[in-house]
Amino acid sequence: MIAVSAGRDAAEEVRIRAMVDAWTEAVRSGDIDARVADYAPDVLSFDAVDPLQRVGSPAVRERLAAWLSSYDGPVDYSPRDVAVTAASDVAFVHCLNHIRGTRSAGGDVDMWVRTTTCLRKLHGRWLIVHEHTSSPFDPQTGLASVGLQP
Amino acid sequence: MIAVSAGRDAAEEVRIRAMVDAWTEAVRSGDIDARVADYAPDVLSFDAVDPLQRVGSPAVRERLAAWLSSYDGPVDYSPRDVAVTAASDVAFVHCLNHIRGTRSAGGDVDMWVRTTTCLRKLHGRWLIVHEHTSSPFDPQTGLASVGLQP
Repeated sequence: MIAVSAGRDAAEEVRIRAMVDAWTEAVRSGDIDARVADYAPDVLSFDAVDPLQRVGSPAVRERLAAWLSSYDGPVDYSPRDVAVTAASDVAFVHCLNHIRGTRSAGGDVDMWVRTTTCLRKLHGRWLIVHEHTSSPFDPQTGLASVGLQP
Repeated sequence: MIAVSAGRDAAEEVRIRAMVDAWTEAVRSGDIDARVADYAPDVLSFDAVDPLQRVGSPAVRERLAAWLSSYDGPVDYSPRDVAVTAASDVAFVHCLNHIRGTRSAGGDVDMWVRTTTCLRKLHGRWLIVHEHTSSPFDPQTGLASVGLQP
């Protein structure tokens, strides 16, 4: 379910919500071109795994391709609690993402991550200028908490 | 150093940059009231450590107090690469944060985290409606990568 919060520009929020749906379908179908189509060339990415940050859409594309190829078959990718807040040319989205699949190296994945996506409308088009995806970690063990559920 | 990216409303970006400076000073001085003053009552927080999410400013305050009290003495907290993008009433900020201090339980901390902060101007005042702080993890070991440097 996707909830649009009360925001500055409801029409833009509907447009961005449709983009989120398209990104989800792109991940599920393994369509790398479609998933990366809306990244700004100089996007700054904070990803769930190392390194600390990636700069530029080629680096984001490379990471996405490596991630998808680490699975044997499709990745079941389901956003939840998607909230979109948009002004006329600045917007942000946050959600939880449920990721399920079978790793090529063996083992089933069933985990939730948190994602925050920040956009700007540049030359009339919404582009992702920043994205932050992560798992929290357990400070007692130092391990990423990939088993948490919302 | 704080860089303000080209955005919709430069005056608002300057205002938010000053808020980031105030939050930094509040953490350094252990002033919990000052640090939590700008959270919206229903803020959604994705923190570096468990759980997956926290809802509401009381939960964020409780977590901040626990975090600060886990240190013996002040926390040296230094944002870097702060970028502010603001429209008239929707904005986002991202940065890296260098955290150094000595834990009450023993051991020195020297780590970098990534933070994304999303704001709305409500009744004429900027409030944090969403915040996302994290460390990436090493997918080979499952451990949070608290030793990475930018």
